[in-house]
Amino acid sequence: MTRDLTVTEVRLTPILVADPPLLNTQGVHQPYTPRLIVEVVTADGVTGLGETYGDTKYLELARPLADRLTGRQITDVNALFGLDIAVDASRVDGAVDVGGLRGVQTADKLRLSVLSAFEVACLDALGKALGLPVHALLGGKVRDSVEYSAYLFYKWAAHPEGVPGEKDDWGAALDPAGVVEQARRFKELHGFTSFKLKGGVFPPEQEIAAVRALAEAFPGHPLRLDPNGAWSVETSLRVAGELGDLLEYLEDPALGTPAMAEVAARTDVPLATNMCVTTFAEIAEAFTKGAVQVVLSDHHYWGGLRNTRQLAAICSAFGVGVSMHSNTHLGISLAAMTQVAATVPDLHHACDSHYPWQSEDVLTERLVFDGGRIAVSDAPGLGVELDRDELARLHRRWTEDDGALRDRDDAAAMRVAEPDWVTPTMPRW
Amino acid sequence: MTRDLTVTEVRLTPILVADPPLLNTQGVHQPYTPRLIVEVVTADGVTGLGETYGDTKYLELARPLADRLTGRQITDVNALFGLDIAVDASRVDGAVDVGGLRGVQTADKLRLSVLSAFEVACLDALGKALGLPVHALLGGKVRDSVEYSAYLFYKWAAHPEGVPGEKDDWGAALDPAGVVEQARRFKELHGFTSFKLKGGVFPPEQEIAAVRALAEAFPGHPLRLDPNGAWSVETSLRVAGELGDLLEYLEDPALGTPAMAEVAARTDVPLATNMCVTTFAEIAEAFTKGAVQVVLSDHHYWGGLRNTRQLAAICSAFGVGVSMHSNTHLGISLAAMTQVAATVPDLHHACDSHYPWQSEDVLTERLVFDGGRIAVSDAPGLGVELDRDELARLHRRWTEDDGALRDRDDAAAMRVAEPDWVTPTMPRW
Ligand SMILES: [Mg+2]
Ligand SMILES: [Mg+2]
Repeated sequence: MTRDLTVTEVRLTPILVADPPLLNTQGVHQPYTPRLIVEVVTADGVTGLGETYGDTKYLELARPLADRLTGRQITDVNALFGLDIAVDASRVDGAVDVGGLRGVQTADKLRLSVLSAFEVACLDALGKALGLPVHALLGGKVRDSVEYSAYLFYKWAAHPEGVPGEKDDWGAALDPAGVVEQARRFKELHGFTSFKLKGGVFPPEQEIAAVRALAEAFPGHPLRLDPNGAWSVETSLRVAGELGDLLEYLEDPALGTPAMAEVAARTDVPLATNMCVTTFAEIAEAFTKGAVQVVLSDHHYWGGLRNTRQLAAICSAFGVGVSMHSNTHLGISLAAMTQVAATVPDLHHACDSHYPWQSEDVLTERLVFDGGRIAVSDAPGLGVELDRDELARLHRRWTEDDGALRDRDDAAAMRVAEPDWVTPTMPRW
Repeated sequence: MTRDLTVTEVRLTPILVADPPLLNTQGVHQPYTPRLIVEVVTADGVTGLGETYGDTKYLELARPLADRLTGRQITDVNALFGLDIAVDASRVDGAVDVGGLRGVQTADKLRLSVLSAFEVACLDALGKALGLPVHALLGGKVRDSVEYSAYLFYKWAAHPEGVPGEKDDWGAALDPAGVVEQARRFKELHGFTSFKLKGGVFPPEQEIAAVRALAEAFPGHPLRLDPNGAWSVETSLRVAGELGDLLEYLEDPALGTPAMAEVAARTDVPLATNMCVTTFAEIAEAFTKGAVQVVLSDHHYWGGLRNTRQLAAICSAFGVGVSMHSNTHLGISLAAMTQVAATVPDLHHACDSHYPWQSEDVLTERLVFDGGRIAVSDAPGLGVELDRDELARLHRRWTEDDGALRDRDDAAAMRVAEPDWVTPTMPRW
């Protein structure tokens, strides 16, 4: 073999991507959300792609990590996770990540969130160099397509007036009828057959009504509700009692493992999480207490595709289900999610993806849902190609931003419309 | 890429390899032990090597599995684990595997034990085809050498008279002095600095004396004792109390998770196992009960190198240590153990290996311990080469055997010397 797999360059391109005014318990999505696009280039000129969160604290870590990757082999990824890269303590306060609604912040998790993009880029580059799809590098696919659920949001018709932002034609969804209409369009466009509603926005009664409306409009379709920990244990139990058999699972009704464990002990509705089990260190307590029945993995903060497979193996050994969480992301990450999901035997729930909400992407060709599923690509690497013009355009948006949008802050975005808005104290209801 | 990674042939070669008269609680090693050598050949003529147990029940499964592998890609391994291959129920009775001293027998475990050899052979072939070491296919090594412990056995000077078998010059080791002498020679030959004594052979007092003698002869060297579940909970606690700080860990003092949990609850000596946690299904109960502090993985029965990494990840998440178990094996498996061990971050104990007891191998070049460590090969695949003449010779031994040795049976081997020997009822002491 004359192939040279040495990393000669790591390109980091922060971008701002259009995001519709989707509501959650913290506030509303900004009109543009920061993402970081990673390109790992080998001595042979092969380029691998990765994508992760693009807020400043991730960018600060990405540069020193990129420097440590340069000169290594793209196959030499495990050792990256042992590198001693300092994380500014002020960046991680141990508190819940308000922006991302994805559990505690720790230095390790911040590191993993950055490393995941490097791992994915290295796998993409390796696959391209060898002529193998990423799934083959993970032991091979066990399915030919991966199912995703429709990710329904309460939303405004438009971002607040005077705020720069892209228009969308989805209209508002602020009541059961609006949610059902959104679901109908999602199903029509992408063929989704399971639906998740992002809750925690309105009082539980309204969200119960929305789920009931979905159940009526789509009988037999798996439904989920995710208030991002906005409810007390008692409220969670009340909702579980009312929605009972309609739900495939209830996602993070209450905040933290002790509260989730209490809810789980008192209801038969399975509980899913991407908030109380978000790191390997959080698993033991949650599983021992039976606090969660489904872990929603996110390869970004779990540290990449191999770690996602390890998480899935842990879940499997403990009889806990596994599926996938999603935050605003582009096609590189959707391709990565699909490749790894294709290799996980015990994947019995449709994965979440924000992708249908993203009107912009940095790929030459968007990924397409067919019957709610993404076909598993057998092309080399992730099977996607970078659109450099589009990348440059979205990067320009980032460079031209005065800093206001470079760190996602859903509460700040909400304050534009409601100046008195403060991040709600949990439990909110 | 014009490379064709299709499996065109799977060669299965059962062999009998010389084994010294090593004693354990079940009996004594046969003069020859069955192993199965697997060769996976690709359309491009690349051959990958694997090795596993060679008893009849494994051979019976290996052929149909080999047929299912033929025509697939060598990268298409995960799907093999989902194949529905029937296992003769009479081969697995749910009881403890008396021959192998490695826990329960299940159809799934039998399948995994065979599949592991195919997985390793596929990884070896893939590495050779791509010019990459196996560790690079697993994400890369995190260390350059892997530490092994000296595996000390009570042993006879020779196999019973009249029995065919190879001679060895290690002499007998049937008391503390003999054990220390064996350890001294192991250390001199291979540089081992930690020692494991296979116990359960003599009453606990004698084995306690042997460990004390080792501690005196090798102060500060990690020591382990493994009676293969031969003791009651009370005996286990007595030994733990007497040997206390001398032991790095006590291995399978009592049989089964409930007994191990009881011992663990009443001693500070860490407990290791390759008997009560030998399948993914056994993990949850053992970890939840705190029954074991170290799991000794064996890539053969855990189902290969990727599964071994997943086991290590599970252990890590639960704060349980991981190391490696060994049964009689040759260099292919030692190379595989070393490649995967090189990629596991939380490997904090020296691994076990019978390899120094094997005077025969099917490699052109034996693997060498230096300072008790095996250097992690960066050569393509496993970095080892098959000696076809030696393979043919050991296979001839197998074909010429009348069937008496084709299924390892330590109790039957013991009956040659002690006709009244019966497999001891556990707990023995
Ligand atoms: Mg969620
Ligand atoms: Mg053992």
